[in-house]
Amino acid sequence: MHISEIETPAVVVDLDVMERNLCRLADYTRRHNLRLRPHTKTHKIPALAERQLELGAAGLTVAKVGEAEVMLKARPPGILVEYPVIGREKIERLAEVARHTRVTVAVDSVEAAEALSAAGTEFGILAEVDVGAARVGVQPGAPLRDLLRRITRLPNLYFEGLSFFQGHILSAQADGVLALERLSVLIEQILADIKQEGLQAQVVSGGNTPTAFLSHQIRGLNEIRSGTYIFNDRNTVFSGGCAWEDCAASLLVTVVSRAVNGQVIIDGGSKAFSSDAYWGPGGGFGHLLEAPQAVFRKMNEEHGFVDIRETGRSFPVGARLRVIPNHICPAVNLHDRVYTVRQDQVEQVWEVAARGKLQ
Amino acid sequence: MHISEIETPAVVVDLDVMERNLCRLADYTRRHNLRLRPHTKTHKIPALAERQLELGAAGLTVAKVGEAEVMLKARPPGILVEYPVIGREKIERLAEVARHTRVTVAVDSVEAAEALSAAGTEFGILAEVDVGAARVGVQPGAPLRDLLRRITRLPNLYFEGLSFFQGHILSAQADGVLALERLSVLIEQILADIKQEGLQAQVVSGGNTPTAFLSHQIRGLNEIRSGTYIFNDRNTVFSGGCAWEDCAASLLVTVVSRAVNGQVIIDGGSKAFSSDAYWGPGGGFGHLLEAPQAVFRKMNEEHGFVDIRETGRSFPVGARLRVIPNHICPAVNLHDRVYTVRQDQVEQVWEVAARGKLQ
Repeated sequence: MHISEIETPAVVVDLDVMERNLCRLADYTRRHNLRLRPHTKTHKIPALAERQLELGAAGLTVAKVGEAEVMLKARPPGILVEYPVIGREKIERLAEVARHTRVTVAVDSVEAAEALSAAGTEFGILAEVDVGAARVGVQPGAPLRDLLRRITRLPNLYFEGLSFFQGHILSAQADGVLALERLSVLIEQILADIKQEGLQAQVVSGGNTPTAFLSHQIRGLNEIRSGTYIFNDRNTVFSGGCAWEDCAASLLVTVVSRAVNGQVIIDGGSKAFSSDAYWGPGGGFGHLLEAPQAVFRKMNEEHGFVDIRETGRSFPVGARLRVIPNHICPAVNLHDRVYTVRQDQVEQVWEVAARGKLQ
Repeated sequence: MHISEIETPAVVVDLDVMERNLCRLADYTRRHNLRLRPHTKTHKIPALAERQLELGAAGLTVAKVGEAEVMLKARPPGILVEYPVIGREKIERLAEVARHTRVTVAVDSVEAAEALSAAGTEFGILAEVDVGAARVGVQPGAPLRDLLRRITRLPNLYFEGLSFFQGHILSAQADGVLALERLSVLIEQILADIKQEGLQAQVVSGGNTPTAFLSHQIRGLNEIRSGTYIFNDRNTVFSGGCAWEDCAASLLVTVVSRAVNGQVIIDGGSKAFSSDAYWGPGGGFGHLLEAPQAVFRKMNEEHGFVDIRETGRSFPVGARLRVIPNHICPAVNLHDRVYTVRQDQVEQVWEVAARGKLQ
């Protein structure tokens, strides 16, 4: 099948670029003696999780129990649920997953830990700590020590260490390096908190793609959970985490209207790309590979508004374009399948098996 | 099944409110002698399309061929594809749909019309005209007359009239009324253009939920394609198009963390709500029914960040909340199923059959 036969809009993955991305981070983590537990939220495809494991990943990371269920197909040595698992049904389902692989859960509340403990299944536990993203995670110091004291007393739970999310550090440039130095100091304090409780953190796990290749500068860190690195996207390029040629996934779209002067409408809007924002100046919703000067300025559900005035070109109705989205993870989640290509040939069509596994 | 047994995050539809919304617009359009061809993009569920037809809808509207294929299940007397259908495979699939029901397509280019004509199947045609949204649609005047001249010569196409999208008019308040008056003047000009070509527009079709109940003030309009009115959402309330008690669909979510002071994290983010923006001041991503003072200020993929400082309340981990999203259409599109309730009892679980039908 030739790429021109793919019906648009569609997610197209360049296999050579993807493989290069996978190997680059695998090599980096091996070289720096870091465990890699890739977050599968980006691709949601068991075959890709298998490839990550083949290349040395220590296990897989998911956000939702439904994703863990799907990722069992990749036969991982372990699954980290980097999300509070709350609700009886979810814990029952997770206990079932734990019959097939080692399951670790990041917790930031005694309530979450108690409910897991009561399930009667052994779960690994990471204490989730807030290092600045102000999302989940207890504060370092007294709140962390209190959580540790209470969860390590509970039966069926095996304390493995710490997890955090440095999602507030979005740059691999000088300001990012400075932020990572501050993070190192904080982690040293946190490890002192843990030591004070007489505990040992086997795992100190951080998550972030923009600064993935600076992870060795974070003192105390021994595991990373990057996800986006497999495909990369416009925000990863903006952050300095990769170059345009490292973006393995793009959306193939068709020009469906050029009735308004200086503009084309493409057949992908928020239901194909997601409306996630760009972190960089100028905003917009994607980078057009064939027309980098074009401004993808607005979206409706099924319409992408592309200002082509700066391109010096015109695009006929029916022209096909490739767009690097702002954020590839929610974009993939909107598609039932992903097409993989080498040059202009489609190699496989993958089902996005964990798409929409919200529960 | 009790509502408390639904695993979160989930879309929950209050059947009584939905039925009231359906009847209200059906009554309005009947009273004002307007055809209603509801856009099914909002619910994507054939059973709901059937109910719209039972209440008098003249047909159904879709954006994509894949949605038309699914909506055949509702046995509509006709389907309007309010979107340029570009690409050989799509037109072949649409010709197959046309074997089962009358298919009308809105076109804004000769290329689109020629490709439809060449398929050898009879299609109804609406000429799409831009009335200010600057999305699709030719400009009134010479460009419209040129399009009409060229498409009405093509075999297999039956000219039915005009369509437009007044999506730039987002208010049912005084400024919206003024904008509708300007729109009326424009439509009168457009109808004169059509007359000048010796043509008759049987159908003059407009789309918009915020101003749906002001449609009778648009002179020349005889059909509306509202979609969102079945469920309504936070933006419809902001626009003045409905009240909170008219919001039939909400997202049921669970508090999964309250580790950060003054904040709770709910288990729905951009993969459950979409990251579509709020039109009103203050931004945010939804309205919490149980805590209207809460500010749903930020989302990651699976995390909703809710500032609860103004609520004067606390919410334990495990608390369940209902949230009216900014935009219900892309939210429904993220879910495989929708739960319908009456009071606290779940009545049905509907598959969102046209979810993800992007092609």
